[in-house]
Amino acid sequence: MCEANAYIRRNGHDELVLEAVDKLIPENNQVCMVNIFGQQKTVKARVIELSLVDHKIILEEITNI
Amino acid sequence: MCEANAYIRRNGHDELVLEAVDKLIPENNQVCMVNIFGQQKTVKARVIELSLVDHKIILEEITNI
Repeated sequence: MCEANAYIRRNGHDELVLEAVDKLIPENNQVCMVNIFGQQKTVKARVIELSLVDHKIILEEITNI
Repeated sequence: MCEANAYIRRNGHDELVLEAVDKLIPENNQVCMVNIFGQQKTVKARVIELSLVDHKIILEEITNI
C-alpha cells in the first residue's frame, strides 16, 4: 500500500496526526486528509515536506492567523 | 514502490512534470521535487491535491506573482 502517515512537526519532534493517508488537499491554511479507512481529519497546517518512500507527510501548524 | 507522479493541472488536464517523486518540499511559491532516480525539479506551483493510492501529486502553476 502506498499511503503515508501524516505528522505535525513540533520542536523538531514529529507527532502522528493521521495514519495511512490517501488523499490530502491543502486549502485556506488548512490541510484536509482522508485515509484508506475513510477517516477524515482537517488541521490548521501546511505541508512542509513529503517523503513518500518513507511514507511520511510532514505538516507544520499554522498558529499566527 | 510508493513514490508518486507529479502533474500540473491545466484547464482540467493533468500534464506530467516529474515521475516517481520521492521528496517534495513546497516553499516560497515553489515546489521542489526529487525523484527516486535523483532527478530534481523546481516549479512555480502549489500542491492542490495528493492522491497517494493513485500515485498522483497534483500541482497548480502560480502565474500571478
